[in-house]
Amino acid sequence: MILLSVSSSPIAAVFSVALLLIYLSEATLGAPCPINGLPIVRNISELPQDNYGRSGLSHMTVAGSVLHGMKEVEIWLQTFAPGSGTPIHRHSCEEVFVVLKGSGTLYLAETHGSFPGKPIEFPVFANSTIHIPINDAHQVKNTGHEDLQVLVIISRPPIKVFTYDDWFMPHTAARLKFPYYWDEQCLQESQKDEL
Amino acid sequence: MILLSVSSSPIAAVFSVALLLIYLSEATLGAPCPINGLPIVRNISELPQDNYGRSGLSHMTVAGSVLHGMKEVEIWLQTFAPGSGTPIHRHSCEEVFVVLKGSGTLYLAETHGSFPGKPIEFPVFANSTIHIPINDAHQVKNTGHEDLQVLVIISRPPIKVFTYDDWFMPHTAARLKFPYYWDEQCLQESQKDEL
Repeated sequence: MILLSVSSSPIAAVFSVALLLIYLSEATLGAPCPINGLPIVRNISELPQDNYGRSGLSHMTVAGSVLHGMKEVEIWLQTFAPGSGTPIHRHSCEEVFVVLKGSGTLYLAETHGSFPGKPIEFPVFANSTIHIPINDAHQVKNTGHEDLQVLVIISRPPIKVFTYDDWFMPHTAARLKFPYYWDEQCLQESQKDEL
Repeated sequence: MILLSVSSSPIAAVFSVALLLIYLSEATLGAPCPINGLPIVRNISELPQDNYGRSGLSHMTVAGSVLHGMKEVEIWLQTFAPGSGTPIHRHSCEEVFVVLKGSGTLYLAETHGSFPGKPIEFPVFANSTIHIPINDAHQVKNTGHEDLQVLVIISRPPIKVFTYDDWFMPHTAARLKFPYYWDEQCLQESQKDEL
């Protein structure tokens, strides 16, 4: 929230201008949360990106619950460097990948027992699409030599994720993260604004 | 459903082989409904495409309710030739476009009165994303000189659409189509199978 007040003091005037310049540079030069609300058309190249502490990942929220108020679908553009990938995880929402660039491997375990078990391997490639069966543990990894870029679509954001250390970890030991907000820094900032 | 029976009659044997060949060619050479169920990884280039009676359109269902059993999200790859576009329409589901190629115009009317009214125009371009506010009448048109290709994501398939002849047609006169199945030919075929 930016409040500008008119003042006759030169120091206050300089301070106000400095505040305004900081606000404008943050709004236009890649601040973590430059988008708030729903601009109708957005240039994907200008969306904020982050690795969210995960090596080899570049994540951009194309349309999300925190940044854009989405309630039923959320769309991410993710790029994985060679050797990197998602954790082993499962969720009850629908998920579809559209592979834009590169190649990799989908590891998918049909979850019938008390742990995921040895996964089936599916090669994935540019111009392919992948559907993840609900609640099946899976992992997408860049097993190629160039960046793997995928558009990810999930239903019912924010996503509720259970992650596994390995394919033989019991379902009951999987770690729950919910709500899993990619852009939670922005959420915290907007919650502070409301206080 | 393919039933193969063993027969000692040469005519029956030839007939059976012919049936098998027809089935195999349909399954591999672009029959309307070659995909039934949920192959985990699909080559988008090999998905069936159709214009569904709309001039200038090529529609492919990347992940859909009829073909792939999707219940919460549906994804289409649509290509519009120059001059073509969607009808003027509205719906209560969420919708996001990701523009892959070309350029065009989004026409969007904020639906506050008894008819959509003169729309606002937004230029759309490759690598942009568009979010359609729920229930606002809109139209995407290829106003450029090359093909406009978009990935379309909607929630809660099948989509329930109200279409308008023009921007001043009353909401009460808009035509409802529900359920709007892109792949309803496949749906009809699978329903026949169940009878």
